Amino acid sequence: MRHIDEPHHDGSALYVSEPAPSPGAPVTVWVRTPRAAGVTGVHVRAVCDGEPRYSEAAVDAERTSSAITGYGADDVWWRAEISAVNPVTRYRFLLRTGGPRAGTGPLWLTAAGVVAHDVTDATDFRLVTHEPPPGWLADAVVYQIFPDRFGRSGQDRPLPGWALPRDWDRDPVIPSGPGTSQQFYGGDLDGVVRHLDHIEALGADTVYLTPIFPARSNHRYDAAAFDRIDPLLGGDEALHRLSDAVHARGMRLLGDITTNHCGDAHPWFTAAVSDVHAPEREMFYFDPVTGDYASWWGVKSLPKLNWGSDLVRERVPAVLTRWLGPLDGWRVDVANMTGRLGADDHTHEVAALLRRALGPGAALIAEHNHDASADLDRDGWHGTMNYGGFTRPVWSWLRGPDLDLDHFLGVPGGVPSRDGLQTLATLRTFAAHMSWRSLTHSWQLLDSHDSPRIRTVTGSRARHLVAAGLQATLPGTPMVFAGSEFGLTGVNGEHSRTPMPWNRPADQDLATLAGYRDLLRLRRDEPALRHGGLRWLHADRDCLVFARETARESLLVCARRAPGRPLPLPAPATPVHNATGPATDTLPGDGPSFSVWRLAR
Amino acid sequence: MRHIDEPHHDGSALYVSEPAPSPGAPVTVWVRTPRAAGVTGVHVRAVCDGEPRYSEAAVDAERTSSAITGYGADDVWWRAEISAVNPVTRYRFLLRTGGPRAGTGPLWLTAAGVVAHDVTDATDFRLVTHEPPPGWLADAVVYQIFPDRFGRSGQDRPLPGWALPRDWDRDPVIPSGPGTSQQFYGGDLDGVVRHLDHIEALGADTVYLTPIFPARSNHRYDAAAFDRIDPLLGGDEALHRLSDAVHARGMRLLGDITTNHCGDAHPWFTAAVSDVHAPEREMFYFDPVTGDYASWWGVKSLPKLNWGSDLVRERVPAVLTRWLGPLDGWRVDVANMTGRLGADDHTHEVAALLRRALGPGAALIAEHNHDASADLDRDGWHGTMNYGGFTRPVWSWLRGPDLDLDHFLGVPGGVPSRDGLQTLATLRTFAAHMSWRSLTHSWQLLDSHDSPRIRTVTGSRARHLVAAGLQATLPGTPMVFAGSEFGLTGVNGEHSRTPMPWNRPADQDLATLAGYRDLLRLRRDEPALRHGGLRWLHADRDCLVFARETARESLLVCARRAPGRPLPLPAPATPVHNATGPATDTLPGDGPSFSVWRLAR
Repeated sequence: MRHIDEPHHDGSALYVSEPAPSPGAPVTVWVRTPRAAGVTGVHVRAVCDGEPRYSEAAVDAERTSSAITGYGADDVWWRAEISAVNPVTRYRFLLRTGGPRAGTGPLWLTAAGVVAHDVTDATDFRLVTHEPPPGWLADAVVYQIFPDRFGRSGQDRPLPGWALPRDWDRDPVIPSGPGTSQQFYGGDLDGVVRHLDHIEALGADTVYLTPIFPARSNHRYDAAAFDRIDPLLGGDEALHRLSDAVHARGMRLLGDITTNHCGDAHPWFTAAVSDVHAPEREMFYFDPVTGDYASWWGVKSLPKLNWGSDLVRERVPAVLTRWLGPLDGWRVDVANMTGRLGADDHTHEVAALLRRALGPGAALIAEHNHDASADLDRDGWHGTMNYGGFTRPVWSWLRGPDLDLDHFLGVPGGVPSRDGLQTLATLRTFAAHMSWRSLTHSWQLLDSHDSPRIRTVTGSRARHLVAAGLQATLPGTPMVFAGSEFGLTGVNGEHSRTPMPWNRPADQDLATLAGYRDLLRLRRDEPALRHGGLRWLHADRDCLVFARETARESLLVCARRAPGRPLPLPAPATPVHNATGPATDTLPGDGPSFSVWRLAR
Repeated sequence: MRHIDEPHHDGSALYVSEPAPSPGAPVTVWVRTPRAAGVTGVHVRAVCDGEPRYSEAAVDAERTSSAITGYGADDVWWRAEISAVNPVTRYRFLLRTGGPRAGTGPLWLTAAGVVAHDVTDATDFRLVTHEPPPGWLADAVVYQIFPDRFGRSGQDRPLPGWALPRDWDRDPVIPSGPGTSQQFYGGDLDGVVRHLDHIEALGADTVYLTPIFPARSNHRYDAAAFDRIDPLLGGDEALHRLSDAVHARGMRLLGDITTNHCGDAHPWFTAAVSDVHAPEREMFYFDPVTGDYASWWGVKSLPKLNWGSDLVRERVPAVLTRWLGPLDGWRVDVANMTGRLGADDHTHEVAALLRRALGPGAALIAEHNHDASADLDRDGWHGTMNYGGFTRPVWSWLRGPDLDLDHFLGVPGGVPSRDGLQTLATLRTFAAHMSWRSLTHSWQLLDSHDSPRIRTVTGSRARHLVAAGLQATLPGTPMVFAGSEFGLTGVNGEHSRTPMPWNRPADQDLATLAGYRDLLRLRRDEPALRHGGLRWLHADRDCLVFARETARESLLVCARRAPGRPLPLPAPATPVHNATGPATDTLPGDGPSFSVWRLAR
């Protein structure tokens, strides 16, 4: 068990005067120190042009005396000035103590927390002067749709030869084996329009569609064209109808682009493969001797694009900008591999090129399934799909006792069972390796079209809703995979691509749906959940407690995976979610449970 | 107290079949697991082209049964195959256990050790396909000379106007204030030749000279020319005499180059400052409006070079190659700031450019005073001056009780006192953020011309020799600052630039000198100390124990800063350094002490 009451800083507006500074701009940073920590002096260290510079912090008397947030009202606040000298300026705090640890020298405070020994710069806080992501992205709740499985308009269209028609409500999705990518349920874009009420009522405001270009599979990651929308989905006109309907609700629409590869039916590739002198030949990695070509994981229908090619650098960004207007941004497929092959590593140039092409209003989110931190905080991706820093630790903590999967999002050996302390350690270390900006603009997801469903992982509605609670209350942009709000199940990505149960009431867990609506409404209503700082307060085997705080409000979140001894509330508080009954002085001991409290000022 | 007996891998030849693989080459890696850890299965994860790939390890029956090293003879050895797909291929191990931790899921083994939760890639092991450093560098013992203070040939030379002549043996060096950089003791290069016997007898084989170009200070970091050697040092001819004498002994000679700046008397700068149309104008950062120019830390006599300039990219590498022959490589001054200013970050290009210019036989070591890891493991610097990962933790552990310095190599607040566990944590975390190759080619230094002397820091010969013991036995290239082998003192860099006490027997602590000779001989005689792996075995407040191991030998090192309960020897062993008396079954409990043992096979 660990009770956490330590000096704190994070990248939120409560602690940083200007989260999007211009180059060279002065920035005020604050750090709060509990009186019991006995901190007698604070310096901030900022690495400027490669060299650390120190400046001394002063006690901020006004903040110290005004009890800026409900918990830790007795904290001392320190204020220091730094400059955003470089595009990314790393900084940390040196804390001198007169307390029990004084004999061992000063403490460092980095984004990984407080340590009493020297550490590398890897987890320093970061000021970023690159143009910030679009303002709406951190406030967004993203809803992911796999178009073949979400909704049908009922329009009759001739099927292509590859498609194996399936009945929406009667034929279960097969998770593997021949035909997996060809089973065709016939969802289309006008079918999405029909269910926008559902999405809006859920509390989502950003619709993300997996690929909608023509292809030869139900997933369409093997694009045969980038210049038109698949007629099976309704074509260009249907995209415009959907986009208009989405935008009319004040919502946004995102696409999904394969920058790593295209399909082998794409004219770029057919031109390249049929003529060694075609200009498109340079767009791929052909072996000059054998004529063989590089492809995604050796799947020859997905030839890998060569970002050393000027033609690729011209044509692919043009695809992304071509669809701006109907679309408000892109999720980038296999961003982690894009531009990387052997000695080639063009990934950062690609990301920067795409971001420049899109301009400041569009979102650009990179798929990455293990550790995106080295690819973030540049002038490219706004954020990542945070499997490593969110999905995996939440799964490991909330997995059901009978779960039997043979890998863990690609890691051999199934989903491990980790306790709350281990879970906290993973959440913190991944968050510490990226800027606050990248963390809050990354997608916080419980599952996707590429993974088992969270309901299958947790094995129960109660644990599922604890997971959804963490998704709604931790920093990061929630991304809900369509159907998980009904408690749908799935043992792998293919299996999770369930046709929506619009006409199968028995497959709609309405209590789960109500839980999602409550949680996402809470996120929308409480600025602290979208923009507040994050302080971890307690972790034990079965319970995680943290605060989300702005200068105006302080919310306390208690997530429990199992019953336990009720913890004391650290300050007077009123329940705002799932904490029924009158005010109390303890947090719930029942579990699984998820509760949110507003701390008194 | 922490007894460490955990699964282990490092980048040494004991665990990696090919430490310098060619691109794409297959590499066998081994991991050893104590039987008590209950490891039931091992996978290696290598990140290839941005995506993790797993392959299963098999028990290596031959190694497991052959007791490859003296300690841990009962370990299970696992063997797996990976490929050096990218210039830097990161890898780690996934360990499945049936032991006490089995309930919490598998363990990860990275260069930071074993953890039972997910972590980012930051501390993954690294295979590097860039051309390796020159073979002699990891075997070297470097001896640093500040030319004005090392030795005099007695030649009479006219002094320039800036010099304030000082008597070698009678005038103490002033540590600060006016005249600090002008106090002139008159050491020269022929004076170095006179004392090569001393250097060789000490056990050093590589002489590193701080700058020797003409300048207007005793430190010469304000070069007024790069195309000739300072006549005050004997000029070009003296360098050739010194180089010939050094090379005749089979030793090597390194120079010191300021790539970040030159002196304001340098013709590049005088041309640039006197004519806004001079081609050299682009070599510096002139403000187009005010005409002011950027300089190192605002010191206007050190104008900063602009590595965006083609002329800088042409002329500076030419300086480094110009002196190859007499010199065998370079230490690069202020490498951490070189090429960095505001939005500019040319540092990696600079490092790569210089390394390509020098070719494979010359050494290129980057000065860096906090955390060089992000600048290493590329195709540039071979290693760093490892202040962050070696000097600081050793100082913090061995500092004397009465030490009173006002900063800690630039960190405000003096040298902290850290215990053995904190010291181990810092040693491990810095080492874990770079490849084994970069670690072993970085300079392991206790002090330099830029720091207080280790004797001043430790305050006693006994603790000083524990520090020297760590320098001689941990992975990394020892760099001895001339004079520290005599126990000279100094409270800051200027003050430590003591004229050598050749004629002051009272200033020669011969017991310290004997200790250095013993330790450096031990390093030269024992391949395991230069090329062996490193396993930490024990840490407590006052004691650190580790093993250095090859397939042929296993040495155990016990460093104590204070007396304590004797620890049991983990295996039968014979003393090889400072462990007097007959064989015993315990490590020494007296302290400060430093002892090395050979474990029986």
